[in-house]
Amino acid sequence: MDKNHVVRIQCMDQKGLIARISGILFQHNHNVLVMKEFVEQSTNTFFARLELTGTLNADLLSSRFRNVLPEGAEVTIIPRRKKKLVLFVTREHHCLSDLLVRHHFDELHASILAVIGNHGDLGPFTERMGIPFFHIPHEEDRTVFEKQMIETLDRFDPDYLVLAKFMRILSPHFVSRYQNRILNIHHSFLPAFKGANPYKRAFERGVKIIGATAHLVSDDLDEGPIVVQKTIEIDHEHELRDMIEAGHEIEKAVLAEALKKIVEDKVFVSGNKTIVLG
Amino acid sequence: MDKNHVVRIQCMDQKGLIARISGILFQHNHNVLVMKEFVEQSTNTFFARLELTGTLNADLLSSRFRNVLPEGAEVTIIPRRKKKLVLFVTREHHCLSDLLVRHHFDELHASILAVIGNHGDLGPFTERMGIPFFHIPHEEDRTVFEKQMIETLDRFDPDYLVLAKFMRILSPHFVSRYQNRILNIHHSFLPAFKGANPYKRAFERGVKIIGATAHLVSDDLDEGPIVVQKTIEIDHEHELRDMIEAGHEIEKAVLAEALKKIVEDKVFVSGNKTIVLG
Amino acid sequence: MDKNHVVRIQCMDQKGLIARISGILFQHNHNVLVMKEFVEQSTNTFFARLELTGTLNADLLSSRFRNVLPEGAEVTIIPRRKKKLVLFVTREHHCLSDLLVRHHFDELHASILAVIGNHGDLGPFTERMGIPFFHIPHEEDRTVFEKQMIETLDRFDPDYLVLAKFMRILSPHFVSRYQNRILNIHHSFLPAFKGANPYKRAFERGVKIIGATAHLVSDDLDEGPIVVQKTIEIDHEHELRDMIEAGHEIEKAVLAEALKKIVEDKVFVSGNKTIVLG
Amino acid sequence: MDKNHVVRIQCMDQKGLIARISGILFQHNHNVLVMKEFVEQSTNTFFARLELTGTLNADLLSSRFRNVLPEGAEVTIIPRRKKKLVLFVTREHHCLSDLLVRHHFDELHASILAVIGNHGDLGPFTERMGIPFFHIPHEEDRTVFEKQMIETLDRFDPDYLVLAKFMRILSPHFVSRYQNRILNIHHSFLPAFKGANPYKRAFERGVKIIGATAHLVSDDLDEGPIVVQKTIEIDHEHELRDMIEAGHEIEKAVLAEALKKIVEDKVFVSGNKTIVLG
Repeated sequence: MDKNHVVRIQCMDQKGLIARISGILFQHNHNVLVMKEFVEQSTNTFFARLELTGTLNADLLSSRFRNVLPEGAEVTIIPRRKKKLVLFVTREHHCLSDLLVRHHFDELHASILAVIGNHGDLGPFTERMGIPFFHIPHEEDRTVFEKQMIETLDRFDPDYLVLAKFMRILSPHFVSRYQNRILNIHHSFLPAFKGANPYKRAFERGVKIIGATAHLVSDDLDEGPIVVQKTIEIDHEHELRDMIEAGHEIEKAVLAEALKKIVEDKVFVSGNKTIVLG
Repeated sequence: MDKNHVVRIQCMDQKGLIARISGILFQHNHNVLVMKEFVEQSTNTFFARLELTGTLNADLLSSRFRNVLPEGAEVTIIPRRKKKLVLFVTREHHCLSDLLVRHHFDELHASILAVIGNHGDLGPFTERMGIPFFHIPHEEDRTVFEKQMIETLDRFDPDYLVLAKFMRILSPHFVSRYQNRILNIHHSFLPAFKGANPYKRAFERGVKIIGATAHLVSDDLDEGPIVVQKTIEIDHEHELRDMIEAGHEIEKAVLAEALKKIVEDKVFVSGNKTIVLG
Repeated sequence: MDKNHVVRIQCMDQKGLIARISGILFQHNHNVLVMKEFVEQSTNTFFARLELTGTLNADLLSSRFRNVLPEGAEVTIIPRRKKKLVLFVTREHHCLSDLLVRHHFDELHASILAVIGNHGDLGPFTERMGIPFFHIPHEEDRTVFEKQMIETLDRFDPDYLVLAKFMRILSPHFVSRYQNRILNIHHSFLPAFKGANPYKRAFERGVKIIGATAHLVSDDLDEGPIVVQKTIEIDHEHELRDMIEAGHEIEKAVLAEALKKIVEDKVFVSGNKTIVLG
Repeated sequence: MDKNHVVRIQCMDQKGLIARISGILFQHNHNVLVMKEFVEQSTNTFFARLELTGTLNADLLSSRFRNVLPEGAEVTIIPRRKKKLVLFVTREHHCLSDLLVRHHFDELHASILAVIGNHGDLGPFTERMGIPFFHIPHEEDRTVFEKQMIETLDRFDPDYLVLAKFMRILSPHFVSRYQNRILNIHHSFLPAFKGANPYKRAFERGVKIIGATAHLVSDDLDEGPIVVQKTIEIDHEHELRDMIEAGHEIEKAVLAEALKKIVEDKVFVSGNKTIVLG
């Protein structure tokens, strides 16, 4: 798999883009495993994701693409390698342990380099699974807290941060360092029940579904681009604790599915939306 | 089926309620087809729904139940007969036509007596299906409009009103006349996207699910007790019109399912929630 | 919409196919609304479906495509027009009425020209919806029966036949006249419960799901290429009649969804499988 | 929770059963947390499951119940304690690791005493999670193999055996020792694709759904009473390996859900079906 590359293109739409792109690939004799494209009508934007096999000169190929694409085209050519992840957690284990198990059996298509917890509870399990755990308590102000986190992150240089039930709000300053590279799981079907205690509010509202939303983190709380959402049906027999228990199942499933799409370079961001190709 | 009765009980919970209820039924030699009960912990309220076969004296049986139940117990004994419905519509046909077809083939377990539209568009189809249609335009103020509606309703004395994509807001005065007897379908997974244009707002937010909610109408817009909710998954290829089209399928399914529960006397209201037994 | 065309291509896979196809489209200055392609690895077959706007010379364009595609390539260029349908029914109305209502409100993207029933029960409703109904009883042997059906069909020259709960088995001779043009709804999640009485057998087996399958009809009963399948969960409270009632909802949803894909020319057949593009 | 008891009753249906049962409970002053009952029409069998709080004399209460119930009534009174489990595995980890993680965080409501593998692959992970692993290879004949398994099981005296992707067929002799106490996960929506290689056969058949079935093991392969089933939708882009990967998610979810119902004493067996109360 390490010989494969993913080509990602995002540009203004025009007639003939596919002909130009596929023409170059044919000239270079690349074998295209998968090609997915999409035109977002509301913004007239063209998105494409391709998987190529065989060795290639990424700089050369990028430049050839840019020559035939509209001005401002974003072209990225990424060798298929495991993305580096750092996970953030608080006290709930279900998303963390799900990802650690997948990682242990090499099914995550990514490397978990470290786990940072603002509480220490999940340290023993993380270390049992062979991953270093850093307990960075949030006792002082957020600036100090985030400074410590950034120092820790800088040791690992992760591609993505995964907030696996991390119950602190990150500052715009922090978020801006990892633009579209922080994946969060929110335990409701956004935009319903933004913010704190979604299950409690869902219980009080008497909803008949609960859900979970994996989204990229932006400056606005729970307003970033959504990657995956799912719901399950509940009924009046679900006490609050049953809703939380049922919710855990869907939270971990949604986060794992979203993370898979992220690390396979399938997620494009357009304004506040995602385009998921492939 | 017309010899069957539904018994509905709602009261403060106490030890021994089921023994008292089932004891009376045994003394009266009633055959209990179905018995469902539920205790809502947060309000300490007991709910029960039973289906009995055989003739009975409803007044006598009610009074015997009330004698052994806590003070304030609500006991209702309802012969199984088709509920009388009046439907309210605007321009979209999908919920109306779904209900009219079920009615035509006698699968609705209810009688549609009339359809009222604030626009006339759906008159021809309604009449083709053999149901009287009343066009009551909303040209003048709401008071006049609702007065005309009430006059029309009074001719039919319906058990329930069904807002089958009726796009006007009813006044508290109107709603109070039909307390917990107006069923509405809202085209989003409430509490997300309350109010107008839910699909447009869902499209703009970039959600990955859309949904529908059937709820009883209260004075607060889209805040009444929820009976049924469902969602379906969508993706970035869904333009607004695709979302609306996909939404129609789930709207009519949700409304039909909720109406079935309503006309079978399965829905209890507790504060702003529903308990659905059976 | 009538100016749009769908191009369908099915051929042996080779490097450069997309470049050749999109190159021709660019030379002809066609605006490509949608392009979806897929390579089936197990058969090394390339499938593509494109939607073009603007006038075109279908013969010329086909021939240009064929010149650059591998030998044996199937290229079809179809103007976007409503497909002509004839529906076959027996006694159950739910699939028929669902399709007739969609047709009445012009949401089917197809024209229902006639309904043929081996029983007469659904004649009145069909005619109420303005569609001619032909009662062709199956009293004599199948040869006579099918001869009468073919005579009726020949008057309408339909693009597709839709078996909307048609409970007779068609002969290989009949099926061969409409190869891959007969869509059937089977009331189970095939390959489980092939043949007669699937709900009864599902009830007896004690399954916790029921389902429906829309498939193209081949000579082998219930073995043709599957287009759409869905299931819903049930439990021990579902008596046989409840399973049948719940099943009706999913049967009509599955058939409607499959028919939509068929009439939009999105369904390709590869051996005994379908590839559904777009 | 250890003071709670579950009462399970299974007997011929008669008028007045609930009155008799709830009368006794009232006389004994038991607090009934939950009471669920069901009458299976096809066999005229009454099933009830109750949860009681407070201390009780199980022998006395059982005997009082039996006095008022029809002859042959099965009455079981079970203190709420963690059930003892032994898991059987082969090479695939996903069901095992899911259960081990739930166990580690004390969410399984059961104790995993040991894991037996006919291959040794999953030994290291099992032991990492603090559970003893026994590698019992299937090199010799099945009699020897099962004898070794039974010797190992006898050391642990488990309430239930969980076949967490155990790819050997157990003999009728073995099964009879643990009647209705062996839970298996089969990786298809039974009765479709019974036996070996369900995903391969599903791929070849071109189905649009895949699924999983948790069932109690009987002498007939994959024919035992079904506890939980679920399906997910797939499409033509799913190669066999994608189907297997997607299937793993649903297999572990189905097995965990079924096991929860089992260890909470919610599953009754009636012939070849299950009644799941609560």
